[in-house]
Amino acid sequence: MSEFDIIQNYFANQGLNRDEVILGIGDDAAITKVATGLEQVITTDTLTSGVHFPIDTAPEAIGHKSLAVNLSDLAAMGAEPVWFTMNLSLPEYDKDWLNRFVSGLFALAAKHNICLIGGDTVKGPLSISIQAAGQLPAGSALRRSGAKTGDKIFVSGFIGDAALAFACRDGQLDISQQDLLKVNQVLNMPEARNLLGQKLRGLANSAIDISDGLSADLTHILVASGRGATIDLQKLPLSEIFLKHAEQIGGHGLALGFGDDYELCFTAPEKNVNKIIKIGQDLDCPVTVIGEVEKEPGLRFKDVYGLNISITEKGYDHFANV
Amino acid sequence: MSEFDIIQNYFANQGLNRDEVILGIGDDAAITKVATGLEQVITTDTLTSGVHFPIDTAPEAIGHKSLAVNLSDLAAMGAEPVWFTMNLSLPEYDKDWLNRFVSGLFALAAKHNICLIGGDTVKGPLSISIQAAGQLPAGSALRRSGAKTGDKIFVSGFIGDAALAFACRDGQLDISQQDLLKVNQVLNMPEARNLLGQKLRGLANSAIDISDGLSADLTHILVASGRGATIDLQKLPLSEIFLKHAEQIGGHGLALGFGDDYELCFTAPEKNVNKIIKIGQDLDCPVTVIGEVEKEPGLRFKDVYGLNISITEKGYDHFANV
Repeated sequence: MSEFDIIQNYFANQGLNRDEVILGIGDDAAITKVATGLEQVITTDTLTSGVHFPIDTAPEAIGHKSLAVNLSDLAAMGAEPVWFTMNLSLPEYDKDWLNRFVSGLFALAAKHNICLIGGDTVKGPLSISIQAAGQLPAGSALRRSGAKTGDKIFVSGFIGDAALAFACRDGQLDISQQDLLKVNQVLNMPEARNLLGQKLRGLANSAIDISDGLSADLTHILVASGRGATIDLQKLPLSEIFLKHAEQIGGHGLALGFGDDYELCFTAPEKNVNKIIKIGQDLDCPVTVIGEVEKEPGLRFKDVYGLNISITEKGYDHFANV
Repeated sequence: MSEFDIIQNYFANQGLNRDEVILGIGDDAAITKVATGLEQVITTDTLTSGVHFPIDTAPEAIGHKSLAVNLSDLAAMGAEPVWFTMNLSLPEYDKDWLNRFVSGLFALAAKHNICLIGGDTVKGPLSISIQAAGQLPAGSALRRSGAKTGDKIFVSGFIGDAALAFACRDGQLDISQQDLLKVNQVLNMPEARNLLGQKLRGLANSAIDISDGLSADLTHILVASGRGATIDLQKLPLSEIFLKHAEQIGGHGLALGFGDDYELCFTAPEKNVNKIIKIGQDLDCPVTVIGEVEKEPGLRFKDVYGLNISITEKGYDHFANV
């Protein structure tokens, strides 16, 4: 099986077309267009076996997540997904693995109407680099740098379940099979919040996706915006499963410090709060206000008793006693 | 040194800006624009250590070639380079290696005025995936499928020197140090023919870059165009160094079958021949007519005695007695 055959058999016929794609797979390069008045949003992320996922992860999940992490970046900018390219490094030709990988990849691509337009397949350790392009009206992108003093801080969905799934990997945690399946789904098959991201254009002042942990990612917004914030720990959106095991795994700190949730963290003026909460309800994606942007730089936390506490370092170890 | 520090120290300040890049490195994604009336051309290629280059290749050359192979795809479409993203897998943090890699990468980027707008850096075996975008007037891209019966077939520069350099790697070939330096330069630091490619818009009917060998790449054009061709082996543009060693390494076949030259192969109507040759002269990049597109499918060769010969398989072994 040559590289050419792999492309033909697994990637060339994804069953998706978009007007923006003039020429897809098969020439020296693809040809795309961007309609007048739109801008393009470009992101890229690599997932490597043994670093970003264990070697025995289901191939469907690897295909799904490789695209999802990129879709999540587009969501954080408020962009509609359009096309992607993929560089796939494969240790060997494994028909079953490839079929399953492609089924996970293209199921998510179809859901978000994003076309594969090109790529490169090489022999090597398992690694997937995807580059994704989105589009949005000129000037409407949600940047990290737009947070304003007084903005409410929001988080979509629930955070911490991916961290919980990760903590379960060593088998030390007492968790039911049913709960484990649920949190593994979050870790391995994250949902990208593209519909929410697009609806936030014009309503939110800044946004980021939570890949490195809420603490670190919100700090990126605050630094880029020259602002600070206080988070009310009581308001963190934690799932029932997370709360059930919170004690065992070091409390709220894990939800703040771990990441891999691929939820959105964003800020918006108070006047837009109701509108945004309604959007979340309509999309079946709850959004929660967890704090407020302040003039004074730094990220501060209010604990469950309403007391201000100071956290000087990132990382969930430091939150163990919160 | 964190991933964040690596990006800040080595990649964030390349000293290049373009109007098309609205937001570069530093947010969830970059933002670009495409002017009305233009289309975008997108390509991606991965180079992996031990597969595409020996582990001890000079870091400058790895940086250069990682970008050059992508620029060459843009050249084959006739596109002006605009921006690129890079996924870099690094086995360790090596300051000296990174400085040298970046110097090779950005020297070529500056020459072609192409901006790095984003990327991802992960720990893993050395591998570089670059995705490059170019632009051109809508509808003007040079595709593989446009060759017409009667078109003359052209090749830019010289072919075969990269193959010669590769053949020298085992040290079996009797070649002077000076000649070895020259052919290694071709193999490791290929020139991308972007200025030529852009000038060919409106003059050439089809084009491809020679990465897999003239035989294989021209066949891609012929199959996509539903045509055939005859190549006059006497007209192949071979360098003095190549001719000096042709006997030792299996004759012209190596120039036809090896690839890695990153020259352009293209077809154009006879009426444009003089104009195209003049363009090559002006760019200091000779272009040579090597054959003609024919109605009958298949790739045929005329040998040095003017006799038609048949070559049924690709690959330079089969050319050993030409």
